[in-house]
Amino acid sequence: MPQPDLISDATVVESLLLFRQHAPLVHCITNDVVQTFTANVLLALNASPAMVVDVNEAAQFSALADALLINVGTITPERSQAMRAAIDAACQNGKPWTLDPVAVGVLSLRSEFCQQIVSQQPATIRGNGSEIMALTQQTGGGRGVDSLHGSDIALQAAQQLAQRSGAIVVVTGEIDYVTDGERTLVVPGGAALMTRVVGTGCALSAVVAGFAALPGDRLYHVASACRVMSCAGERAARQASGPGSFTPLFLDALWTLGAEGGI
Amino acid sequence: MPQPDLISDATVVESLLLFRQHAPLVHCITNDVVQTFTANVLLALNASPAMVVDVNEAAQFSALADALLINVGTITPERSQAMRAAIDAACQNGKPWTLDPVAVGVLSLRSEFCQQIVSQQPATIRGNGSEIMALTQQTGGGRGVDSLHGSDIALQAAQQLAQRSGAIVVVTGEIDYVTDGERTLVVPGGAALMTRVVGTGCALSAVVAGFAALPGDRLYHVASACRVMSCAGERAARQASGPGSFTPLFLDALWTLGAEGGI
Amino acid sequence: MPQPDLISDATVVESLLLFRQHAPLVHCITNDVVQTFTANVLLALNASPAMVVDVNEAAQFSALADALLINVGTITPERSQAMRAAIDAACQNGKPWTLDPVAVGVLSLRSEFCQQIVSQQPATIRGNGSEIMALTQQTGGGRGVDSLHGSDIALQAAQQLAQRSGAIVVVTGEIDYVTDGERTLVVPGGAALMTRVVGTGCALSAVVAGFAALPGDRLYHVASACRVMSCAGERAARQASGPGSFTPLFLDALWTLGAEGGI
Repeated sequence: MPQPDLISDATVVESLLLFRQHAPLVHCITNDVVQTFTANVLLALNASPAMVVDVNEAAQFSALADALLINVGTITPERSQAMRAAIDAACQNGKPWTLDPVAVGVLSLRSEFCQQIVSQQPATIRGNGSEIMALTQQTGGGRGVDSLHGSDIALQAAQQLAQRSGAIVVVTGEIDYVTDGERTLVVPGGAALMTRVVGTGCALSAVVAGFAALPGDRLYHVASACRVMSCAGERAARQASGPGSFTPLFLDALWTLGAEGGI
Repeated sequence: MPQPDLISDATVVESLLLFRQHAPLVHCITNDVVQTFTANVLLALNASPAMVVDVNEAAQFSALADALLINVGTITPERSQAMRAAIDAACQNGKPWTLDPVAVGVLSLRSEFCQQIVSQQPATIRGNGSEIMALTQQTGGGRGVDSLHGSDIALQAAQQLAQRSGAIVVVTGEIDYVTDGERTLVVPGGAALMTRVVGTGCALSAVVAGFAALPGDRLYHVASACRVMSCAGERAARQASGPGSFTPLFLDALWTLGAEGGI
Repeated sequence: MPQPDLISDATVVESLLLFRQHAPLVHCITNDVVQTFTANVLLALNASPAMVVDVNEAAQFSALADALLINVGTITPERSQAMRAAIDAACQNGKPWTLDPVAVGVLSLRSEFCQQIVSQQPATIRGNGSEIMALTQQTGGGRGVDSLHGSDIALQAAQQLAQRSGAIVVVTGEIDYVTDGERTLVVPGGAALMTRVVGTGCALSAVVAGFAALPGDRLYHVASACRVMSCAGERAARQASGPGSFTPLFLDALWTLGAEGGI
């Protein structure tokens, strides 16, 4: 396996400008806790979020949207049916879908569900170290929604998962790794305060879902999505007095990022 | 049809002060994405929001509340039953109810549901151009939750819908129109940033629902609700650095608006 | 009944530092409107929130978590089953659970549910005056989610409820009372703006749930939780221009509170 490469600023800016221009419509079937923040993150990046959860409507909508996000954070049997219908419609219509396997390996419904749908050709999978390891090895699992494993320890699992599923796999932590099973990119940055605001990881998955719909090399687009979020996090953290002031600063940073042609 | 009239500042201030004094209890059965923001908007205007979604409790609560909001953004069959029960109770108890037909015309469950309940004498209907056109003509439909039609193009549809349903119809866009089918008011203002924060339209519908419960000419109260929101949007946009800082500024503007006797 | 004692600053700081150190994992089955804010409040205090709502997963997770919060604000029959399963698992595993009986006494499903589960040995119950009176006397009830009774009027009801249920009972209002049925503590402070932001009471219940899991005298820990929140509210209100700017300031205040060894 070749050494991971660092994603370059120029690549990130190029992907970001393309994203703003395409303004993808992202269908998010995500958990109850992060819906507002997820929508606001996508809006700040000029994308269009929409959350449609009825089983029939979810299938209709995934056929129309540019990308689909499946986040199992507050899954129920009923919601899992809507997720399946949306994934089927996305696959049939050639729309990329992204999996955020929140707390997989810890709880039964989501673990079975994620193991099943991971075979339905997700375009991307985004999780923390514990989640990616649980998804690959059917062992592990975190402390609730938090990871007990660093992203570096999970890198090999991520590469295996990418090879098995055909997805770009993102394992996030202090450093993020983005891999297609052959090539691996390293995304630096971020800020500790991001872990003290609910939904930063879930919103990243929604952004990843949108970037996965861009034309071009998906590996680089997905890594760019990670860097956009970590860069906005750094900027916000520099000015924030705590997790409360962080959130508006973070959304403002996403809004302005790349405006000067750099990040 | 007479020329639309501009709503006057004096009318808006009068309605706003009456609203703060009455502090209506607004029962919101709304979509999952905007519940917190909707509640905070109502609270900033001194109203009392409450979200009650069990089918039996929703009926009980609509009989007690001053106004009801029905927003179909994340409708499910189960939620639609609670909505029907709440509408029935509101009608039986003489409480005004407001419809926000999010993405009607695009998706099937909500489209059928909206076409049915629109005959149950809503006090007000608030939608964007595509939604109002879809509701009237059973054609059209937007791009997800976004409108493809300006409010001016939809004005005639709004007037027809008002005549058919007996509701005050609000069609929002760069300019808002408020019509009872005979008289039409124009509401200027607002800010582009409002489209980059999730729930500003949905929250407007909740505010419209509350203003529709005030004694007096409902047409003017509803237009005042629109102007209160567009005015707060302008103030917030003047100070905001992006959609993140916009939100707290917007709620603060709602809180202080009208305090000096003007807007 | 002895006179209520004022909670001391030294006790509050001690509990707060213990809380940050233990960083409890709090399983919140709470209402749809306040999930994000509740999670962010817990995160700002260094705790780990998680919302798991499927009936089987909720039972699994309550066995793992340090504490459980049950908030009935947007209860449905399905959600009530998950709540029962989670309470059973918490009791079997010796984990403390906290009840927030939102609008009990006003609506039927939640009223029956709360009357039943109150016999399952909650560690703490947190409500406003109307809720605590409704829970005790099966009369009363507020205006929607708002209280019509001050906390002082409800103090006797709180003491009776504590004796009957074995819980520490918190009745909040302009002054908060915390009682185990024998001893009663008084918690001063807070700010009027806290009533203009949705979820401050619900988030307090989540914080109470977490503090109830600390080793030591639960009565003092729970009163400390109330004082932490009222103190952060005072600090935020001093700087806020309205309810919009209040929220980030409040979370920042929770984040920094106690850093200088005092509050």
